[in-house]
Amino acid sequence: MKIAVLAGDGIGPEIVAEAVKVLNALGERFELSEAKVGGAAYDAHGHPLPPETLSLARESDAILFGAVGDWKYDALERRLRPEQAILGLRRELGLFANFRPAILYPQLADASTLKPEVVSGLDILIVRELNGDVYFGQPRGLREVEDGPFKGAREGFDTMRYSEPEVRRIGRVAFEAARQRQRRVTSVDKSNVLETSQLWREVMIEVSKDYPDVELSHMYVDNAAMQLVRAPKSFDVVVTGNLFGDILSDQASMLTGSIGMLPSASLNDRKQGLYEPSHGSAPDIAGKGLANPLATILSAAMMLRYSFGRNDLAGRIEAAVERVLADGLRTADIAEAGKASVGTREMGDAVVAAL
Amino acid sequence: MKIAVLAGDGIGPEIVAEAVKVLNALGERFELSEAKVGGAAYDAHGHPLPPETLSLARESDAILFGAVGDWKYDALERRLRPEQAILGLRRELGLFANFRPAILYPQLADASTLKPEVVSGLDILIVRELNGDVYFGQPRGLREVEDGPFKGAREGFDTMRYSEPEVRRIGRVAFEAARQRQRRVTSVDKSNVLETSQLWREVMIEVSKDYPDVELSHMYVDNAAMQLVRAPKSFDVVVTGNLFGDILSDQASMLTGSIGMLPSASLNDRKQGLYEPSHGSAPDIAGKGLANPLATILSAAMMLRYSFGRNDLAGRIEAAVERVLADGLRTADIAEAGKASVGTREMGDAVVAAL
Ligand SMILES: CC(C)[C@H](C(=O)O)[C@@H](O)C(=O)O
Ligand SMILES: CC(C)[C@H](C(=O)O)[C@@H](O)C(=O)O
Repeated sequence: MKIAVLAGDGIGPEIVAEAVKVLNALGERFELSEAKVGGAAYDAHGHPLPPETLSLARESDAILFGAVGDWKYDALERRLRPEQAILGLRRELGLFANFRPAILYPQLADASTLKPEVVSGLDILIVRELNGDVYFGQPRGLREVEDGPFKGAREGFDTMRYSEPEVRRIGRVAFEAARQRQRRVTSVDKSNVLETSQLWREVMIEVSKDYPDVELSHMYVDNAAMQLVRAPKSFDVVVTGNLFGDILSDQASMLTGSIGMLPSASLNDRKQGLYEPSHGSAPDIAGKGLANPLATILSAAMMLRYSFGRNDLAGRIEAAVERVLADGLRTADIAEAGKASVGTREMGDAVVAAL
Repeated sequence: MKIAVLAGDGIGPEIVAEAVKVLNALGERFELSEAKVGGAAYDAHGHPLPPETLSLARESDAILFGAVGDWKYDALERRLRPEQAILGLRRELGLFANFRPAILYPQLADASTLKPEVVSGLDILIVRELNGDVYFGQPRGLREVEDGPFKGAREGFDTMRYSEPEVRRIGRVAFEAARQRQRRVTSVDKSNVLETSQLWREVMIEVSKDYPDVELSHMYVDNAAMQLVRAPKSFDVVVTGNLFGDILSDQASMLTGSIGMLPSASLNDRKQGLYEPSHGSAPDIAGKGLANPLATILSAAMMLRYSFGRNDLAGRIEAAVERVLADGLRTADIAEAGKASVGTREMGDAVVAAL
C-alpha cells in the first residue's frame, strides 16, 4: 500500500499530519512518501506540480492530498498557480471519477444554515466527472470575433465537450455506487440548451439499461440547484459533468454546514485515487492548529475502501470519528457558539484513541 | 405603452390574466395585444415562436410573458420545444440583461427552508447576461473525436464564449443597478479554469474604474454556490454569465422559499423588455385556479419601472402586493401548513382592491 503524501499549502500540512497519524495507528504496513505540491512546490521548485511530485503520484497506489492555494500566489500567471496541480494530477493520472459525499452528521445538525427537518439525515453522493467538459476541451483561448455586431472585438472562448465513452464510464460508476445505496441516480445536465448535454442524457439512458434495479431520473442543472435547497433529502446519487459537478458538489457540501467533515475521492480505472478533504487550504487559519482534520482523516478512510479494498480499516476509522463526535469533541468550525473547542492535534489524537 | 401579452402554457394564462387585470386597474392607457407562445403556439401554428408572435414582440415596447412548457411536448425535437420560444425572443430582441431579484418578504420568512436568521431581510439582485455564453456560442453539435484514447467516438460539443463589448455592457448594467442599492457588485466566474472567465474578469475590473463609488469583488462560481447557502445576505448585486446565472439565480430564488413571488425582467439596449415570473409553467396545477399570480403582477411592475420609466405606477403595484400579504392573503404555495389559502383570481382581485 504505497501512498504519496502531498500536504500542500495553508492548513494542508496540519490536517494531513493527523490523517497520517491515524493511518499509522491502524497497525498496517503503509509505505508513505512525501512530496511538495501547489504553492509549496512552486516556492521550492518553481512549479505547482513538479516532475518529481508527478512521478511519485504515478508510482503510488493512492495519494493523500491536503489542500493547495494561498492569496500570495494570486499574482502568478495561471499555469503556475497552486490549483493547477490538482488539475494536472487529475489529467495526468486519468482520475475521472470524483466522489463527493454530502453527509450531515446527526451530532452536527445545528451547524447547517438550513432548518433541521430539511437536512437531518442528509446523505447525498455526488459523482462528478473529472477529466472532461469545458475544463479540458480544446480549442480554448483568446481570439477576434469573426462577424456580427461585435466583429473585431477580443473574445475569450472554451470548448465544452463529452464523448460517449467518457459519459458511459462515469455513468457506470454512478450506477454501481447507487447499488450500494438507495438505488436512485439523478443525472444532471442542461440538455434543453446544450448539445453536450443531449449526448450526456442519451448515454445515461443507455447505461441505465444495464441497471434495471436502479432508478434513473434526469434534472436540469438549474432545477438541481433549486431542489438541493428545497428538498435535499430527495437525492441519493447525483451524477453530472465536471463543471456542473464543481458547482453542485460545493453547494451540497455547504448544506451540511460542516464542510470541515467532508472527504472526497478521485479515481481512475485502475482504482488509483487521490483523496482530499472537500474544503480548501484556509490560509487565514494556517499554522494555528485550529483546522478540522476530520475531512482528511475520512478521506484516508475512503482511500482504504476504494483503492485498497479494505472496508474493515475504513470502517474502523469512520467509527472512531463518529465516536469522537458523540463524545462532544469539536474543532472551532463545528463547535456551537460559546462552546469549547479542541485543536487540530487534539482532534487527531482523539480519533487515534477511539480506534 | 404597447405591450405584447404572451401567456404561454400551463398556469401561464391564469397568472397573466391577473397581471393584466392589475395593469388595467391603474387607469392608464396600455395597448395590449395577445399572441400564442410555447406549446400553445406549437399546437396552433406548429412552432413555439411563430413569425406573428415574434413580430408582435418586436413591435411592442414590452412583453408580458407567462410561462411555457408541459410534459406533453417532451418528445418533440428540441427546436420545437416550448422553451425555445424564450431563447428565440432573447436572441431576436437582443435581450441581454436579465434582472432576477431574490427578495424575501418578511411576511413569508417561514416559507424558506433556511433558518430565519440566515435569510430574513434577504435582498439580492442577480444580473445575468442573456445573449452570450455557451447558450448561443458556435460551433456546437455532434462530431467524432479526432484523437486520443477516445478517437472515433461520438462526441457532443458546445462553445462557451464572451467578447469584451458583451461583458462590458452587462457590467455597466450591474454597476448602474448597484448604485440604486448597496453599491456592491460580486462578479461570478470560473477564471481559475476558463479562458472565457479570464476575459470576463479582466473586463469587469476595467468597467469598475468608471464606478469608483461601487465596490467590486470576484468570486468563483463554486464558491458563490456555497456562499449563497452559507451567508446569502452578504450579497448585494451579483453579475454573471448566462450559464452560471441560470444556476445561481434559480438557487437564489429558492432560498426565499417563495419563488411564486419573484418577478424577472430581460432588457435590451433600447429598454425593450420581456417580463416574466421566475417560476415555471407548473402543468400539474394548470387550470385549477391555484397558481400564485404575484410574481407575474410584480413582473408587470418591473415593466412599468424599466421599460416605461413609471416608478410611480410600479410603486403602487408593489405597495398593493405588500398590503395583501400584510392582510394575510396567501395562495397555496405560500400558505403555512394548515392555514387557509386563496385562489389565483381572488389574489388578483385583492391586489386590484388594494390599489
Ligand atoms: C481549484 C479548482 C480548479 C477545482 C475545480 O474547479 O475543479 C476545485 O474547485 C475543485 O472542485 O476541486
Ligand atoms: C428554459 C431554459 C432554456 C431557460 C434558461 O436556461 O435560460 C430557463 O431555465 C431560464 O432560466 O429562463
